[in-house]
Amino acid sequence: MKPSIPKGTRDFSPLEVARRNYIFDTIKTVFKKYGYQPIETPVMENLSTLTGKYGDEGDKLIFKILNSGDFFEPIQNSKDKIQNSKEALPLISEKALRYDLTVPFARYVVMHQNDIKLPFKRYQIQPVWRADRPQKGRYREFYQCDADVVGSKSLLNEAEFVLIYDEVFKKLGVPVTIKVNNRKLLFGICESAGVPDLFMPITIAIDKLDKVGLNGVQEELGKLEGLNADSITIISKFLSATDANKSIADCIKSLKDLFGNRSETATKGIAEMEEMLGYLEKLRPDASTTLSMTNLKLDITLARGLNYYTGTIFEVQADAGTLKSSIGGGGRYDNLTGMFGLKNLTGVGISFGADRIYDVVEELNLFPTNAIEGVKVMITNAETAAENTALTLLKTLREQGIASELFHELQPGAFGKQLKYANEKQIPFVVVIGSAELQENKFTLKNMETGEQQLLNIDELIKQLS
Amino acid sequence: MKPSIPKGTRDFSPLEVARRNYIFDTIKTVFKKYGYQPIETPVMENLSTLTGKYGDEGDKLIFKILNSGDFFEPIQNSKDKIQNSKEALPLISEKALRYDLTVPFARYVVMHQNDIKLPFKRYQIQPVWRADRPQKGRYREFYQCDADVVGSKSLLNEAEFVLIYDEVFKKLGVPVTIKVNNRKLLFGICESAGVPDLFMPITIAIDKLDKVGLNGVQEELGKLEGLNADSITIISKFLSATDANKSIADCIKSLKDLFGNRSETATKGIAEMEEMLGYLEKLRPDASTTLSMTNLKLDITLARGLNYYTGTIFEVQADAGTLKSSIGGGGRYDNLTGMFGLKNLTGVGISFGADRIYDVVEELNLFPTNAIEGVKVMITNAETAAENTALTLLKTLREQGIASELFHELQPGAFGKQLKYANEKQIPFVVVIGSAELQENKFTLKNMETGEQQLLNIDELIKQLS
Repeated sequence: MKPSIPKGTRDFSPLEVARRNYIFDTIKTVFKKYGYQPIETPVMENLSTLTGKYGDEGDKLIFKILNSGDFFEPIQNSKDKIQNSKEALPLISEKALRYDLTVPFARYVVMHQNDIKLPFKRYQIQPVWRADRPQKGRYREFYQCDADVVGSKSLLNEAEFVLIYDEVFKKLGVPVTIKVNNRKLLFGICESAGVPDLFMPITIAIDKLDKVGLNGVQEELGKLEGLNADSITIISKFLSATDANKSIADCIKSLKDLFGNRSETATKGIAEMEEMLGYLEKLRPDASTTLSMTNLKLDITLARGLNYYTGTIFEVQADAGTLKSSIGGGGRYDNLTGMFGLKNLTGVGISFGADRIYDVVEELNLFPTNAIEGVKVMITNAETAAENTALTLLKTLREQGIASELFHELQPGAFGKQLKYANEKQIPFVVVIGSAELQENKFTLKNMETGEQQLLNIDELIKQLS
Repeated sequence: MKPSIPKGTRDFSPLEVARRNYIFDTIKTVFKKYGYQPIETPVMENLSTLTGKYGDEGDKLIFKILNSGDFFEPIQNSKDKIQNSKEALPLISEKALRYDLTVPFARYVVMHQNDIKLPFKRYQIQPVWRADRPQKGRYREFYQCDADVVGSKSLLNEAEFVLIYDEVFKKLGVPVTIKVNNRKLLFGICESAGVPDLFMPITIAIDKLDKVGLNGVQEELGKLEGLNADSITIISKFLSATDANKSIADCIKSLKDLFGNRSETATKGIAEMEEMLGYLEKLRPDASTTLSMTNLKLDITLARGLNYYTGTIFEVQADAGTLKSSIGGGGRYDNLTGMFGLKNLTGVGISFGADRIYDVVEELNLFPTNAIEGVKVMITNAETAAENTALTLLKTLREQGIASELFHELQPGAFGKQLKYANEKQIPFVVVIGSAELQENKFTLKNMETGEQQLLNIDELIKQLS
C-alpha cells in the first residue's frame, strides 16, 4: 500500500522546482541573447525514429511503450511462435520515450523543413529517459538543455557557443574549464599514422583516456587489428601534444609541428580552430569581466563518443566541487539530418547537463536564497471580530499583486500557533490584527526574519510589502 | 524514411512555445499570488500507482511502459501459457505514463507527508498521456495545470478558486461562465427521492445532461433498477430548479423550498454554498473591475463524473469562440489520499485545460503580438571591411543584454538578401554597416516594420534598442 516511484525518477518539491528553474532560466536567458528560440517535441516518438541512432547499447536503454488496446493479440496469433524479446518487440511496441534531444531535433528539422528558415537556431529544454542503472547523480528521467544551429557552416557559431558556456557558468558562479578539439585533427592523427580507415575505433579508444589513462588507451589501441606499434607511437605522440598548462597558441604550434604536411584534413582542422579563436578574440568581453581565455583549453585527447561529430567538439568540466564531472558538451556535425533523408545540412550544437549542474551549484552553495517565490505575507486569523478586516486586507494586497494568504481557518486566540505555521513555511512577513489594531484601524507587520514589528496604516503596509 | 510523430502528439514551434508559455505564465502568476507553489512529479509512475484509479475505461487508456531488458522472458518461461493481454500485462510492464496530475499529487502527499506542512498548497503544470482516440482538440499528450490544497476544510479555499479562475480568464481576455454546484446537493436529491443508495449511478446519469438533455437523463434514470417514476419526477423537478437566467440567490431560494427538511446532507450543502458565496462577496474585486458575479452560476445539473468529489464542484465554460467547451473544472474531495492509505485528509482543487484554452485564445485572436521573444536586432554582414566593426558591435549589444545576431556569414554586397532573411525571421531591427557608415563611424538602424532608417552613433543605437 505504501506508494513509491520508479527507481531513477524523482519528485521535485517547491524548493527544488524553484532551484531547477533558476538554472533553466539562466540558460534560457543566454540562449535567447544569442538568437536561439525554443521548440518542444513530444515525449513519445515513433520507435522507428529512435532505433539504430544510439548504437546497440543505446537501443537497449530506450524505454519502449506498449501498444494500447489488445497488445498481446499479434503475439498470440503469430504464425511463427514468438521465442524472445527481439521477436516480440516489433509486435507489441511502436512508440518509445525520447532518449535525447538531438535525434528528435533532426526529425523536427526534416519534418518541418518547409516551414523553417535556415540557419535555424533552436534551443530545447526537456526531459529524456534512459534505462541506465540508476546511481548517484545518474537518473533514468533527467533534463537536457540543448542549443543547435543548422544550415550555417560559419565558425562564428562555434565561437558563440564557447561564449554561451562561459556566460552561463559565470552567471551561476561555477568555475569551469571549456575544452575544445576538432574531429578533423583526430582524423589527421589517423592519417598521419597511416590508418585513416581505423578512425572510428581509434576515436572510441581515445575517448576512454579520462577513465583509463594513456597506458590504457595504448593497450586498447594494441588490440585493434591493422594497427602496428609504429602507428601507436605516432598516435601517442599526438595525444601528448596538448596539455592543460600550455596556452592554446602553444598547443596549436606543437600540433602544426607534428602534423607538418602529412594530413590535409588536419590542416583544415587547424585552420578551423584558428578561425574560431579569431572570432572569440573579437567577441569575448574584456578579460576582467568574463572569459579569461585561461579556462579555454585545446585538448587533443577530447574525442566524444558520438560518431556524428565531424568538426569542432566541446566539453565543459566543473573546476570546483567533488564531482569535477562533465557538465556539458557538443560539437559540429555535417550530416545529422541524413538519418532522415535530408542530406548535406551542416549544424553545430551544445548541451548542458542540468542535473549535474544542479548538484554542483548545490554543493557549492550557490543557489540564491530567494530562488523560491512563495507567499510574501500571511495575515493571522485569530480574532473573530477581525475576520472581515482580514478579508478586505487580503483582497487589497492581492490587488496590488502581493502574493498573500489568510491563515486558512479562524482559530480564536491562536496567534502563536499561526506565527509558527508562517515560520515553518518561510513566509517572510506576517500581519497581526488583534483588538488593539482594530481599534486604531492599523496593522502590525512582523518581519519573521528579524522579529521586528511595526504598527502601520494600510498605505504604509502596502508600501512596505511592494 | 519520411519521419513522423505518433498520432495525437505534436511538435511546438518557437511561436507555439511562446504562446503556450504566455498561457502557462498567466496561470502561474495567479496561482502564486494566492499562495500556491509548484511541484513536479515523474512522467513515469509505477503502474500499480495508477491502476484502478480511473475506472475500467481509464485503465485501458493508460500508456504502459515495457520493462527494460529481456522483457519477454517471464512470458516465455511462465508455467501456465499466457493467453491474452490481461495475463501478459503484469509480466511485462510495471511502469506507466502519468494519466493525470491528481493521482500523482495524492501519491506525492502520502510519500512526503513528513516533509510537507498542512495545509499544503501546490500547483503543477505538466503533460499527461491518454490512449484516447485522437480528434480535433483532443490529444494523446497534453498539458494539465492543476492547483490543489490539502489539509484545510475552510470554504475560503473554494472562494479563492473562483477568484483564481476569474482572474486568469480576465487576464487572457476570454469571457467565461463559472458554474458551481455541491455534491451534497446531488446526494440530497437522491435522499429526497428516497434512493440514497443510487447516488453514484444517478450522478453519472445527470453528468450526461449536457450531451443528452433532460429527456435523455430521464430515460437513463428509467433504466436504473430500484428507481420508480415518482422518484424520477422528484429528481427532474430538482434538475430544473436552477437556470442560467436566475441569480444565485434565487437558485438557492428555489432549492431551499424544494428540499425543505427532507435531507440533512442537502441542508449542509446549502450552508456550504452560502459560506463560499459569503467569502466571495468580501473578496471579489469591485464589480466594475473583475468578477461581476453574473458569470458565476449555480447549476444543480453539474455533476462531474469523477467519484472522489464530495463537496463543492466547479466547471468553467468559454462563452466565446466556436468551442464553447469546458476549459476547467475541479472540486472538493474528502479522501483522495485514502487510496494510498492516508485517511481523512480533505482537499479541494481545480484544473485548467491548457490545450483547449490555447485553441480558444487563438480563435479569438487574443495572443499578444509580442509573445515571441526573438532576436531584437540583426547586424548585416555584407561588407568585408566592416566585419570587425560588426563583431565589436555584436559584442557591445549583447553586453547590454540585447538579443542580437550577426548575419551568419560574410556575403559581400548581399544587403538585400540579408534584409529579406531578417524580415522572414520577423527580427524587428537591422543594423546596416556599409562603407558610408564605416567612414562616419556610425550605424544605420532600420526599423523593419515601418521601414524607417536612422543614422546613429553607438550610444544612440544602444539607447534605441534598449
